[in-house]
Amino acid sequence: MNEAALTLEGWYALHDFRSLNWTAWTAADDEERAVALEELHAFIHEWDAVEASNTGSSTVYAIVGQKADFVLMHLRESLEALNQLETAFNKIAFAQYTTKAYSYVSIVELSNYAAGGGDGSDPMLNPHVISRLKPIFPQAKYFCFYPMSKKRDLADNWYMLEMDKRRELMHSHGLIGRSYAGKVKQIITGSVGFDDWEWGVTLFAEDALQFKKLIYEMRFDEVTARYGEFGSFYVGNLLTPVTFEEMLKL
Amino acid sequence: MNEAALTLEGWYALHDFRSLNWTAWTAADDEERAVALEELHAFIHEWDAVEASNTGSSTVYAIVGQKADFVLMHLRESLEALNQLETAFNKIAFAQYTTKAYSYVSIVELSNYAAGGGDGSDPMLNPHVISRLKPIFPQAKYFCFYPMSKKRDLADNWYMLEMDKRRELMHSHGLIGRSYAGKVKQIITGSVGFDDWEWGVTLFAEDALQFKKLIYEMRFDEVTARYGEFGSFYVGNLLTPVTFEEMLKL
Amino acid sequence: MNEAALTLEGWYALHDFRSLNWTAWTAADDEERAVALEELHAFIHEWDAVEASNTGSSTVYAIVGQKADFVLMHLRESLEALNQLETAFNKIAFAQYTTKAYSYVSIVELSNYAAGGGDGSDPMLNPHVISRLKPIFPQAKYFCFYPMSKKRDLADNWYMLEMDKRRELMHSHGLIGRSYAGKVKQIITGSVGFDDWEWGVTLFAEDALQFKKLIYEMRFDEVTARYGEFGSFYVGNLLTPVTFEEMLKL
Amino acid sequence: MNEAALTLEGWYALHDFRSLNWTAWTAADDEERAVALEELHAFIHEWDAVEASNTGSSTVYAIVGQKADFVLMHLRESLEALNQLETAFNKIAFAQYTTKAYSYVSIVELSNYAAGGGDGSDPMLNPHVISRLKPIFPQAKYFCFYPMSKKRDLADNWYMLEMDKRRELMHSHGLIGRSYAGKVKQIITGSVGFDDWEWGVTLFAEDALQFKKLIYEMRFDEVTARYGEFGSFYVGNLLTPVTFEEMLKL
Amino acid sequence: MNEAALTLEGWYALHDFRSLNWTAWTAADDEERAVALEELHAFIHEWDAVEASNTGSSTVYAIVGQKADFVLMHLRESLEALNQLETAFNKIAFAQYTTKAYSYVSIVELSNYAAGGGDGSDPMLNPHVISRLKPIFPQAKYFCFYPMSKKRDLADNWYMLEMDKRRELMHSHGLIGRSYAGKVKQIITGSVGFDDWEWGVTLFAEDALQFKKLIYEMRFDEVTARYGEFGSFYVGNLLTPVTFEEMLKL
Repeated sequence: MNEAALTLEGWYALHDFRSLNWTAWTAADDEERAVALEELHAFIHEWDAVEASNTGSSTVYAIVGQKADFVLMHLRESLEALNQLETAFNKIAFAQYTTKAYSYVSIVELSNYAAGGGDGSDPMLNPHVISRLKPIFPQAKYFCFYPMSKKRDLADNWYMLEMDKRRELMHSHGLIGRSYAGKVKQIITGSVGFDDWEWGVTLFAEDALQFKKLIYEMRFDEVTARYGEFGSFYVGNLLTPVTFEEMLKL
Repeated sequence: MNEAALTLEGWYALHDFRSLNWTAWTAADDEERAVALEELHAFIHEWDAVEASNTGSSTVYAIVGQKADFVLMHLRESLEALNQLETAFNKIAFAQYTTKAYSYVSIVELSNYAAGGGDGSDPMLNPHVISRLKPIFPQAKYFCFYPMSKKRDLADNWYMLEMDKRRELMHSHGLIGRSYAGKVKQIITGSVGFDDWEWGVTLFAEDALQFKKLIYEMRFDEVTARYGEFGSFYVGNLLTPVTFEEMLKL
Repeated sequence: MNEAALTLEGWYALHDFRSLNWTAWTAADDEERAVALEELHAFIHEWDAVEASNTGSSTVYAIVGQKADFVLMHLRESLEALNQLETAFNKIAFAQYTTKAYSYVSIVELSNYAAGGGDGSDPMLNPHVISRLKPIFPQAKYFCFYPMSKKRDLADNWYMLEMDKRRELMHSHGLIGRSYAGKVKQIITGSVGFDDWEWGVTLFAEDALQFKKLIYEMRFDEVTARYGEFGSFYVGNLLTPVTFEEMLKL
Repeated sequence: MNEAALTLEGWYALHDFRSLNWTAWTAADDEERAVALEELHAFIHEWDAVEASNTGSSTVYAIVGQKADFVLMHLRESLEALNQLETAFNKIAFAQYTTKAYSYVSIVELSNYAAGGGDGSDPMLNPHVISRLKPIFPQAKYFCFYPMSKKRDLADNWYMLEMDKRRELMHSHGLIGRSYAGKVKQIITGSVGFDDWEWGVTLFAEDALQFKKLIYEMRFDEVTARYGEFGSFYVGNLLTPVTFEEMLKL
Repeated sequence: MNEAALTLEGWYALHDFRSLNWTAWTAADDEERAVALEELHAFIHEWDAVEASNTGSSTVYAIVGQKADFVLMHLRESLEALNQLETAFNKIAFAQYTTKAYSYVSIVELSNYAAGGGDGSDPMLNPHVISRLKPIFPQAKYFCFYPMSKKRDLADNWYMLEMDKRRELMHSHGLIGRSYAGKVKQIITGSVGFDDWEWGVTLFAEDALQFKKLIYEMRFDEVTARYGEFGSFYVGNLLTPVTFEEMLKL
C-alpha cells in the first residue's frame, strides 16, 4: 500500500494571519469603531454554533512581533466552508481596518507512521482517531505555528529513503514529541497540493518556553537535522473576547 | 530527433490570479457595484461564444487563503488573444476593485514521453490528441495549480540524464497519474521561454483531497523526489455565475 | 589574451518594463488621457531620428501576464543617453499612469567564443560585426527576454573550466542556436558590472512557439544543463503605434 | 541529559525596528508633532519603573541606513508583556508616523555550552547567572543586531555532530568572544520556535569598529566558517531622550 | 596575529540610493519645486566644507535603470555623522519627493592581504595608507557599486582555507586589479557587522565599459570563481550640480 493511502485526513484548516492598520483604527471615530467591533463580535460568536454542531472549530491568538497582529484559525469540513469564512470576514467593517499578513491552507492528518492500525479495523470508526482528525482548538495560553517540508537535497533526500528507514526515524522523532505530553499539544496538518510547504505544525501550551524546548530538542533528531526544512515561525497569546477587546480599545 | 521537436503544443494559457480590494468594494455605493458586476458578467459572458467556436476556453475559481481571491484561467489560440483578454479585463469597472496577485503564461503540451505516436502518422490529425491540446475546462468543483521545473543541481540533474532513463522514469511517474483517472483531471502546460518555471500543472477534481493524495504519492517517485522543484500551490472552489455573485454580494 | 579582452561590445541597452496603473488611467478624463497619449507619441516619435542617424534603436512590446504591461527597449551609444531616455520618459504625463516593473542594463556583445576573427584583422572594421554590435530592433511579432548567468556551484563551475573546454561547449551550444536561424533572431547583451545577472538574452520571432522550442532544446545542452542559471522570463507582442493606441483606448 | 534541558532561559525579548514616515512627519503641524512627542516621551518614561522593579529593561537606538530609523528593544518577563508593549506603542500618536521595518522575538539564554555548572547546584540561584539571564541594557554608544542559525547542509550539519565535538568547537569560539571582554558586551537570545532564525545576537560597544573586528575574526572560526548562517545586520547609535528629540526636531 | 587585527579601517561609508517620486514631483507647483531644489542645493553645498576640513567626502551619481534614480555617497569619521546626514536629508523638502531604494553601511578598509607593512612601522603614520583609508571621491564620469561576500559552501569555503592559501589567491586577484590602474579606481569598504554582505566595492571610471572588462576578467580568477558571492550591481553617471538640476527640471 502506498504512503498517501495510509494517511488519514480530517477537517480542512485555514490559518488567517492579519495585521491591524493602526493608523486607520486610531483615526476612526468612536461610532465607526463601535460598529466594527460589533461586527467582529458577531463574526466570532458564530463559532459557538459550529463547535456545538461538531462541524468545526475556530480560535484567535495575538501574534508577538511585526509579522501580524492576530491570527484567525479555522477547522471546517470543506474548502468551501473555509472560503466562505474568509469572504464573510472580508465583508465586515472590522476587516477594512486589517491587512493580509500570511495564510496557510491545509488539512488535519494522521500520518501513516502514527496512525497505527494494521489490525484491519476501519480507523475512521475509532473515536480516538476521529477526535484527533476533527479536534476542537484548546484554550491554551500560547500558540506556535510553522510550516515545514522534508528536504530533497542530494544525499539528504527524505523521499528517496526506504519506508522502513523513514518509519524508524519517525519513531524516534515521535518519542521526543511524546515526552512533552501534557506540556505541548500539537495539531499536524498536511498541505501537499494545498499550500507551499508540505505540513503545518500548530502547537499549544500553557508555558511558551516549552515550544522552544521541544523544537530545539527535535532539531538534533536525524529526521529534523538532516531532513527538516522550516518556514516562518509565529508565536502568540490567546485572545479571549475580553483580551481582544482590550487590545483594540483606545 | 530532439526533445523539443517531439513535444506537441496546443492552446496558449493564461492563469490570471487576482485579489479583491475589499475595502474599496465595501466602500463603493450600490450603483457603482452594480455597474462593476454588470461589466464583469458581460466579460464572462463572452466566453460562451469562444467555447462555441472552439477557439478557446475560460473559467474562474475562488482561491482559498490570502494568495488571491480568484483566478481567471484562459486558453486561446495566440498570445495576442491572451493579451487582449487581460487588457479587456483591466479596462472594466470591476477590475478597478482588484489587484494583481500572480499570473502564469504557458501553452498546453503533450510531452514527447506521453505523445506516443511513433507509427508515423501525424498526431495533429488524431482527434484524441487534438482534444488534449485544445481542452475545454471541466466544471469540476475543485482546482489546484502549481508551476514546476526539473532540477539541475550537481548529481541531481534531469537534463544530463540520457533520454532512455528519462523516458523510463516518466513512465513510472505516469502510472501514478493514471491510477487517479476518473478522480483527477490534469492539464499540463509548458512554459519554457514564457514564464519562470518550466511547466504549469492545473488539476481538477470533485474531491479536493485527491490533489493531496496524488501529489504526495508522486513525491516518492524518483522523477519528483530527485528532480522535481515546485513553486507556489493554489487551491480553490469553482465559481459559477451564481456563487461568484454570492461571493461579491454585501 | 584574457577573456574580457576578446569580447566585443557595441551599444548600451536598457530594458524598461512598466505596468499601467489601470485604475488611474480609467479614472482620468478624456482630456488628461489625450494629453498623456500625445506626449507618449512624441516620445516614441523621436526614435525615428535616432535610428535614421544610426545612433541607436528603440522598440516597445506588450507583455503577457502580470509581470508588466509593456517594455520600452533602447539601444544607445552611452549610459548617459539611456539615462536621459529614462528621465525624459519619467517626465511625460503618460509615465505618471505607469509604475516600474523591472529593468535591465547591459551592452550588446559578441563573445570571444563567437567573434571568431583570429586572422589579425580589426573586427570593428568588419561591417557584419558592426551590424551585430549596433543592431536595429526587428519589427518581429513576438519578443522574449530573460537574464542569465553561468553557474559557480561546487563541481558545476563554469569559470573554473579551461578555456578550450568552454569553447568546445559553446560551440555545440551555438549549433542549436544556428539551427533556428530564420526562425529566431537574438541579441545577446553582457551585464557583468551593470546589472544582477551576467547576460541578457532578447529574442524575436514571428512564431512565439519557437522561443519555447529553442530554449527547451538548449536546456539539454551541457552548457545550459550544468551551467545555466536563469532569471525571470518575459514574453510579449509587438506594439505598433496602432496597437499601442488600441491597448490604451477605453 | 538533552541539549534543550541544559539551556537556561531568562527574559523574553522583542526587537521592534521602525521607519519614520518623514513625509507625514514633516507635513504635520507643530501641535500634532508636539502631541506625538509627548506621547512618545510618556511611553519611554514608563520604562524607568520597569527597570526599577527589576521586571525588564528597554532601550532605543537609531539605525544607520535605510533598513529602519530606530529600534525599540524590550526585555520582559512574558510574551504577554511584550505584546502589550507593542500594542501600547501602536496606539500612541507618534506610532502613526512610523511604519514596521523588522522585528525579532526571542528569549535571553545561556547555552548548555556556556552555563557551566555541573557541580549540582541550581544555576537559577546563582546571582551571576541571573544577571546574565535578566540583563539591564547598557547605555553603550553603539549597538549591533543580527539573527543567525546553525547550518544543516549535507556535510556541514551542526545538528548531526556529536555533543563533544560541538562543545569543543563552541569552546574555541567562546575564547574569541572573551578576548573582546571590556570592548563588546553581548546578549544572546534563543528564538527556536519564536522566530525565523535560531538565535539573535545583540552587541553593545563604545567603538563600533569592534563589532566588525569581533565578527570578522569569528568568521574564520570553524563554528562560524562551516556552520554559521546569518540574517540581516543592523547597526546604530544610542538614542537618549535628548538625541531622539534632536533627530525628530524639524 | 589574527586577520581582523591586520585589517586597517578609515572613514565610515553610507551609500544612500533613492528613487524620485516623479508623479509627486511633476504634480508639485513651480514654487514647491523651487523650495525643494534650494534645500537640496544647500544640503549638497555643505559637503564642500567637509572636504575642505578633511573630515569626509560626499558625491552623487544618477543610477541607470529602475533600481534607483540617484545615490548619495558619504564618507565620514563616525556612524553618528552618517546618521546625522541621513536625518538631515530626510528633513529637507526635496526628500519628500523621494523614496528609499537601497542603502549600504560600511567602512573603508585595507585588507591584511594588501596593507603590506610587516616592516614594523605604524601604517597609520604612512600618508599613502591614510589617503587610501580617507579618500576623496573622484569626479569620475561613471560609478559602479556592488556588495559581495566570500562563499562558505561545503568544499568552497573561503574561511576554512589556510591564510597562506588565501594570501596567494588574493595576490593573483590583486594583479588583475592592478592591470586596470589608470582606468578604474576602486574603494573597498568592509561591512562585516554593519550590513548584509561582507564588503562593498565602489568603482569609478571615465569609460563604463572598463567596469565590465575588469569584473568579467576577475570572474575567472579562483578567488571570485570559487569563492565570490555578489549582491545587486548599480551603475550610473556623475551628477554635477548642473546635470542634477537638468535631471530634475521639467
